[in-house]
Amino acid sequence: MRTFFSEDHRLHFPQAELTGGQFVTPYERPSRVEYVLNRLKEQGLADIVAPDAPDMAPVKKLLDPGFLRFLETAWDEWKAAGMKGEVIAAGMPARGMHPDRCPEYIDGKVGYYCHASETAITGGTWRAALSSLASAQSAQAQVAAGAQAAFALCRPPGHHATADQYGGYCFINNAAVVAQMFRDDGAGKVAVLDIDFHHGNGTQNIFYDRADVLFASLHGDPRHAYPYYLGYADERGTGAGEGANLNYPMLPGTPYGPWAEALDDAIAKIRAAGVEALVVSLGVDAFKDDPISFFKLESADFADAGRRIAGLGLPTVFCMEGGYAIEAVGINTVNVLEGFLGA
Amino acid sequence: MRTFFSEDHRLHFPQAELTGGQFVTPYERPSRVEYVLNRLKEQGLADIVAPDAPDMAPVKKLLDPGFLRFLETAWDEWKAAGMKGEVIAAGMPARGMHPDRCPEYIDGKVGYYCHASETAITGGTWRAALSSLASAQSAQAQVAAGAQAAFALCRPPGHHATADQYGGYCFINNAAVVAQMFRDDGAGKVAVLDIDFHHGNGTQNIFYDRADVLFASLHGDPRHAYPYYLGYADERGTGAGEGANLNYPMLPGTPYGPWAEALDDAIAKIRAAGVEALVVSLGVDAFKDDPISFFKLESADFADAGRRIAGLGLPTVFCMEGGYAIEAVGINTVNVLEGFLGA
Ligand SMILES: [Zn+2]
Ligand SMILES: [Zn+2]
Repeated sequence: MRTFFSEDHRLHFPQAELTGGQFVTPYERPSRVEYVLNRLKEQGLADIVAPDAPDMAPVKKLLDPGFLRFLETAWDEWKAAGMKGEVIAAGMPARGMHPDRCPEYIDGKVGYYCHASETAITGGTWRAALSSLASAQSAQAQVAAGAQAAFALCRPPGHHATADQYGGYCFINNAAVVAQMFRDDGAGKVAVLDIDFHHGNGTQNIFYDRADVLFASLHGDPRHAYPYYLGYADERGTGAGEGANLNYPMLPGTPYGPWAEALDDAIAKIRAAGVEALVVSLGVDAFKDDPISFFKLESADFADAGRRIAGLGLPTVFCMEGGYAIEAVGINTVNVLEGFLGA
Repeated sequence: MRTFFSEDHRLHFPQAELTGGQFVTPYERPSRVEYVLNRLKEQGLADIVAPDAPDMAPVKKLLDPGFLRFLETAWDEWKAAGMKGEVIAAGMPARGMHPDRCPEYIDGKVGYYCHASETAITGGTWRAALSSLASAQSAQAQVAAGAQAAFALCRPPGHHATADQYGGYCFINNAAVVAQMFRDDGAGKVAVLDIDFHHGNGTQNIFYDRADVLFASLHGDPRHAYPYYLGYADERGTGAGEGANLNYPMLPGTPYGPWAEALDDAIAKIRAAGVEALVVSLGVDAFKDDPISFFKLESADFADAGRRIAGLGLPTVFCMEGGYAIEAVGINTVNVLEGFLGA
């Protein structure tokens, strides 16, 4: 399996993440992918290549062009307004406010296009997000050209980003773009399977009213886990998309047994839906030692999960999402891939 | 005119305000009211008394009881969860998320009950907010008992707080509580006139569907000024409240001329509505040197505004709101009161 990876991810490394009422060094940091790269090489998965340039055409069709322009210009506009720190949202269009009027002043714009203030934008964020997108797109192209699977070692991750909001360390929803590209390439139906610990609110949001992209997410119950305000089991899609959104929220302390049951259920429904291509939002923060999550998966469980996913027999793009137990991120991520390959 | 004031405001003084991507010492700080107190005394308005204990009965009827419990317990719950800093919201129920499901974990709860992350909750915030409320309630009681006017030197301020959200330095909407108490005391119709630089989104929100409380706000255009996502001129109320919400958004650089025209228009509409009691949300951040605002009022203009408001001839409670040009806050605030008294 080929890995697509860009060194430009390093351009995004904010000084600050807002958590617990303080600024800390972001959990989502460059060293995460170093561990994945090293583990890939150790395990003989050394086919690691740089992606082609990103193709913005499918992105602009799927996501809000105003949001993309915002991401590209936010840092310059913020600095031009005299802001001293990194770009961090303060107010947002909260309950009872206009969801559809974007202010002109950059401070208001930032809040409009953001859904969580832990995530800062820096001078290099846009280029890093583009390089992450590029890896996802190149992985999709390789699979569309006939490879069984490819791994996009994306950083920053993408699954929390909606069509017009960043947050949760995510800026461009790589997995959603890949799913749309499979559709554009002729797949009748595509599934996004999100095994990151956190609900893939961005991906759900983007495809919520569509029947042609099935979304399934295993994640911490939103009553207890970020993103808190989405990810309930009764969110099943709307309109044509009714029934094409599958959420498996699980409680603190959930071990692999029930997690794997949820995975099997999602896999069965993806199989039954007649899906022709699969995108896996591959986060490994379901790991027992993850510092910001509460599931109890062991490292070996990730290999088992990979085997189960391979059972679908679908052309598959893995997009890297979260995982913050830094040294274990490599082992757990590569375990999923090896489980998939060895199945 | 009697001033009601509690020293307990000092219990609220967060270390941190999130602004421009950094933590700064909050603009909304205890010294603000010291300047007002000193100026009151200098000008012979030395009738300054401590309020009675707050009466929670009317507050619980007007505001969300779950929100009030949250404000009371947030600090302890936050600390019990191991958070190191002050209570600061990161994520919020943003566009596309559930507006009506409050998470169980404190980090999610904080975001649910917040609409702007600049505002921190500390161990003393609840008691300070109650003392601010108490000043407002005691001022109302004095006017209800026959005084022409009273001044509640509230801190923290209140007009950005909705029935179930804090933010914008505000926790309990003092002005809204006073308006409701006038209604409960028999006033057929009450008006809240908000001359703070910022839109009184909380007050608007609380009374938006009611005809019995007219709300009028002069403020920075939300395209350019906090709270950004509310305060447009086309927000005119809903249902029975249709037409009872009057917003006067104004552009950066607005001087007293057009500001006073908006004030006169609001006053004319309050007069025409047959209002029997008036609450003034008295912020003085429309001042030309305010560090976080963009109108151009001179100190003398505040006295003129007070004179115009007095022209209504209504029983009036002034509730202190914003104003951050610290040394001028006293002069400008007392100018409004003196203009009112001398009219
Ligand atoms: Zn995650
Ligand atoms: Zn203000």
